[in-house]
Amino acid sequence: MCPARLSAVEESLVAAMWTAVECAEAVRGTTSPNPPVGCVVLDRDGVVVGTGGTQPPGGAHAEVGALAVAGERARGGTAVVTLEPCSHYGRTPPCAGALLAAGVARVVYAVSDPDPQAAGGGRVLADAGVRVEGGVLADEVAAGPLRAWLHSVATGRPHVTWKYAATLDGRVAAADGTSRWISSGDSRVEVHEVRRKVDAIVAGRGTVLADDPALTARDAGGTPAARQPLRVVVGLGDLPGGARVLDDAAETLHVRTHDPAEVLAVLGARGVVDVLLEGGPTLAGAFTRAGLVDRVLAYLAPTLLGAGPVALGDAGVATITGAHRLRVEGVTMSGPDVRVSAVPVRD
Amino acid sequence: MCPARLSAVEESLVAAMWTAVECAEAVRGTTSPNPPVGCVVLDRDGVVVGTGGTQPPGGAHAEVGALAVAGERARGGTAVVTLEPCSHYGRTPPCAGALLAAGVARVVYAVSDPDPQAAGGGRVLADAGVRVEGGVLADEVAAGPLRAWLHSVATGRPHVTWKYAATLDGRVAAADGTSRWISSGDSRVEVHEVRRKVDAIVAGRGTVLADDPALTARDAGGTPAARQPLRVVVGLGDLPGGARVLDDAAETLHVRTHDPAEVLAVLGARGVVDVLLEGGPTLAGAFTRAGLVDRVLAYLAPTLLGAGPVALGDAGVATITGAHRLRVEGVTMSGPDVRVSAVPVRD
Repeated sequence: MCPARLSAVEESLVAAMWTAVECAEAVRGTTSPNPPVGCVVLDRDGVVVGTGGTQPPGGAHAEVGALAVAGERARGGTAVVTLEPCSHYGRTPPCAGALLAAGVARVVYAVSDPDPQAAGGGRVLADAGVRVEGGVLADEVAAGPLRAWLHSVATGRPHVTWKYAATLDGRVAAADGTSRWISSGDSRVEVHEVRRKVDAIVAGRGTVLADDPALTARDAGGTPAARQPLRVVVGLGDLPGGARVLDDAAETLHVRTHDPAEVLAVLGARGVVDVLLEGGPTLAGAFTRAGLVDRVLAYLAPTLLGAGPVALGDAGVATITGAHRLRVEGVTMSGPDVRVSAVPVRD
Repeated sequence: MCPARLSAVEESLVAAMWTAVECAEAVRGTTSPNPPVGCVVLDRDGVVVGTGGTQPPGGAHAEVGALAVAGERARGGTAVVTLEPCSHYGRTPPCAGALLAAGVARVVYAVSDPDPQAAGGGRVLADAGVRVEGGVLADEVAAGPLRAWLHSVATGRPHVTWKYAATLDGRVAAADGTSRWISSGDSRVEVHEVRRKVDAIVAGRGTVLADDPALTARDAGGTPAARQPLRVVVGLGDLPGGARVLDDAAETLHVRTHDPAEVLAVLGARGVVDVLLEGGPTLAGAFTRAGLVDRVLAYLAPTLLGAGPVALGDAGVATITGAHRLRVEGVTMSGPDVRVSAVPVRD
């Protein structure tokens, strides 16, 4: 796919695309149901003169923000953007038009717009004489900031990441139920970063009763993030009045069902695109059984317990050949813990 | 520890030491109770003129073998060896004497001999005018081919590696007991390599009754290795007459106890230095509880089961603060599986 040696110009475009990816990551969790997009504008000489990320729904798209920063310096320059610019009127005017109005001579994007209603921005631009190229860092963007949004466009339901922390022998708590802390401080800080970037955190009512989690995104010092994801508790019975999830630190939705598909339908209807499923074992089992886990994020602490509850309850598997199969997409250390990211292998 | 830039001469010595490590790895599993040592002899010009590894007990030490290959070309040259040459008469004459007789001008070794009976070879050589340096790749050798032997010298008991294969959610079999195969073909080939290099493979009687394992080292095509580790079954009751571990593919020892310390005492008395503990959960729990697991080697397959037995049974831990703590020393992929190597953190 990639030529053996890029020219200096092309290298600077790839570097600009990585900056655009950072701009997109910076707004993840604030844009749904719109995609978190990043844009970098270069002037005629290839100098970065503007950057932008998608603003919350109703606000400016990434291209418009970056063009506003660049001003007249965009004329004759290049826009580098993680998603093909839109060509349709939604809540905001199309970005293709804004790029033309700014006099941009070249547009480089990563991922083609999969939304039939929005697609065609590249063609509109090319028809107007702009040099247009797609596919730069397409895989990285598709597996990165646009993963959940692309999934929701393709499937019509939110993307679900099941996150858990367990010991190397698979326990999520000791025999007496204690679990603070299974994973390291480094991993817990990282999980709060993950929480900050999603639209909703889902937990079962059993977990709320057992652990009384806050389900908020906080920094290393415990200060809550300015924007909090929606907290979602799944289960039929009422929640205890004093439960932390009912405090005013974030909005909380109680979905009275045991059906994962129903949970996702409710969340999708609210514009949720990116879901973090945080347990417990029964709910994780139900989502896995239903084929509704799109990514597994496991933090494995280098400890052994030999007793206590495990991360995943009944997932509908009776025999080894029926195991839910995954593909490991990344293994890294998170402080002393092993962090494994894996995605389902679907036949 | 390491100078910022080695001279070309020193770099060639490091390269020779890596070759010596390979020579040592090649004889692992055949030398106990002696250490698996590797030696490379360089001539005056730094050219490799001989390599050798420790022969089975009663046979030549690594230095003697390498010197025999080098012949007269060793005179004025350098011997590079993973362990300080011995200076005592055991079943064979001391290596220090052999090096002097060969006229070697310089000896470079990795790890100092920790055995008080054997130590002093470096001093003997230096007193005779040989240039002697220790510590080259010492950490690598100590954590590598000499790990088990150094452990046995320091503690008086064999080194125990607990190996298991589990799903990402910690199961070693499905709900119906099926477990072929949890881990990938790549991992199984790797485990047979691990088996080939140890002195003994230990399993519980329950595992023999449940799975009827062969507990032999085989190649990818299923052909047994020429040398087989001792098979050890731990448990009070008799073994079924038709059990595979009772076939003539390898020697088998039945140790009628539930006490891991007693198992290791019996094995140590037979000259076993390096033990691979392969389960099941009860025996692994007993070894862990007794603090007699020196390394954990986990093959985690990217699959989810949600039910079925887990790798580690009762390890004597009641609450989270009592968890057995480890330090991850390496994470690699083994085909599609995640391979984690971890060692206990002992206070």
